Amino acid sequence: MTTPDTKFSFPDDETKRRITENFNRQGFLIHAGAELGLILPGFVEILLPHSSNVDQQHGYFHGGATATIADSSAGIAAQTLIANGSTVLTTEFKINFVAPAIGDRLIARGRVIKPGRTLTVCQSDIYAEKENKETLIATALLTMILVPAMRNREKDHVA
Amino acid sequence: MTTPDTKFSFPDDETKRRITENFNRQGFLIHAGAELGLILPGFVEILLPHSSNVDQQHGYFHGGATATIADSSAGIAAQTLIANGSTVLTTEFKINFVAPAIGDRLIARGRVIKPGRTLTVCQSDIYAEKENKETLIATALLTMILVPAMRNREKDHVA
Amino acid sequence: MTTPDTKFSFPDDETKRRITENFNRQGFLIHAGAELGLILPGFVEILLPHSSNVDQQHGYFHGGATATIADSSAGIAAQTLIANGSTVLTTEFKINFVAPAIGDRLIARGRVIKPGRTLTVCQSDIYAEKENKETLIATALLTMILVPAMRNREKDHVA
Amino acid sequence: MTTPDTKFSFPDDETKRRITENFNRQGFLIHAGAELGLILPGFVEILLPHSSNVDQQHGYFHGGATATIADSSAGIAAQTLIANGSTVLTTEFKINFVAPAIGDRLIARGRVIKPGRTLTVCQSDIYAEKENKETLIATALLTMILVPAMRNREKDHVA
Repeated sequence: MTTPDTKFSFPDDETKRRITENFNRQGFLIHAGAELGLILPGFVEILLPHSSNVDQQHGYFHGGATATIADSSAGIAAQTLIANGSTVLTTEFKINFVAPAIGDRLIARGRVIKPGRTLTVCQSDIYAEKENKETLIATALLTMILVPAMRNREKDHVA
Repeated sequence: MTTPDTKFSFPDDETKRRITENFNRQGFLIHAGAELGLILPGFVEILLPHSSNVDQQHGYFHGGATATIADSSAGIAAQTLIANGSTVLTTEFKINFVAPAIGDRLIARGRVIKPGRTLTVCQSDIYAEKENKETLIATALLTMILVPAMRNREKDHVA
Repeated sequence: MTTPDTKFSFPDDETKRRITENFNRQGFLIHAGAELGLILPGFVEILLPHSSNVDQQHGYFHGGATATIADSSAGIAAQTLIANGSTVLTTEFKINFVAPAIGDRLIARGRVIKPGRTLTVCQSDIYAEKENKETLIATALLTMILVPAMRNREKDHVA
Repeated sequence: MTTPDTKFSFPDDETKRRITENFNRQGFLIHAGAELGLILPGFVEILLPHSSNVDQQHGYFHGGATATIADSSAGIAAQTLIANGSTVLTTEFKINFVAPAIGDRLIARGRVIKPGRTLTVCQSDIYAEKENKETLIATALLTMILVPAMRNREKDHVA
């Protein structure tokens, strides 16, 4: 079970507001219907209601939609631990699909496993919710890179 | 450079038609604006034009959009080698982002590395096209599982 | 923290004995000095004492040694859940190194996340122990394939 | 097929000598019987003869041995492109096993896909050689981090 880790704290009072603002400027997520859930230090939930915008040919959630909220929940979890001006980018991730992605909505729970000066390693577990019962449908392991404020204009992936 | 492998062939004359039909029933891909490109035995291209539906907060292609076409190009490449009735599902994949995903469109080129009775291993290279110049922006390694026709109604991920 | 999952049970009374026998016939593990620790249903520990046989040029544990016990702890954890005659093979894994592998010994704790008829998804966390203090140094996500008894003579990786 | 990329060059005349020296101080590789093969800019081969030191219970090469030379061939390929004093460490890798690892020796061919200031992405294909015929048995995708000379004393994995 993916649960928040109490050893982390927000870098400043504006962290949650910044994260929400950033999220709302991500066309791909908004367009898919994704929403932010719980935002804690080093832990972030993303919710994705089922719709024809996110499914594949059998009516299940598309693997790409699942991967997208896995990636974003982990990236934003890493973002909760860094000060204003710096950015977090995904350098790579791996995802395993362990059960059919069928249900009313998906819930991705991203959390920081190991924060670092340059790289932060995260995990995300993705659950399908159906009639209020959650089933683990995928799990991901991800590496984020911190782009410090002064280098931020480049925003390149692997520096 | 990702190029077609001439050792493969289509299982029947209907392969390309089936693949196109399946693609057009995938809400998530269609909604994002993805299109099928070249379809060869064991090799498939997916094109993704830039739009506000697929970007993130800096105007680049979202990593989730990149991962989605990587996954789909590889899955469909595996699908080109199997007979009607059987299905291919992604069991897992890993993607590395190697350059900023900026440009007019992305081109994912998926190909089969090793076909198998149960598992098929694929690769996908994703390029950003800008002013007719292509740059490699991500590379993925993926495992597909073959679900034979008779078990097809279950359509579960890891059987 | 990687802990045993009480929902699993051994398929028969001989499981632990078979696992120990198999382990002792793996030249690569024995030669490196690896030892079996705790063996529970769906959960296995492998211990690797530090020696010149397992280090790299700076005296740390070699990443390959770390990956080896990650792989084996997860594979054997999957093996604890299957009946005599069937075999488990690794189809793929991914490992993230999160801290320097320095200490008196490594402890890999593999556990089954999702067992399946064909594929079993596992996780392994690897800790370095130094002066009785454990530090997480790597985490891995792995896919195992079950080779049923009757197909066992082939023992091929991806069937 | 994994082949050298002619766009790279060695940073200085001492590169090959340094790499050979470093290799010979890696206890785990030497103990397993691994040897350096071709060393070109951004491309490195590692050879691993079959022996009881590197096999598993069925007499095949152990997956951990395969992963070890995949990792090392890629890491050393990255090392060929950096100047004296700086070091390359593996941050993470993923490997797919695509055929049984059976034969007289394994040959891992690592190459740099994308060099970077901080991260370098590499690939490694591993072949089993039997009666002079090579078969692809595994493929890996790896991320290396560059530790500059001045920070080199720390030698930590994820900075």
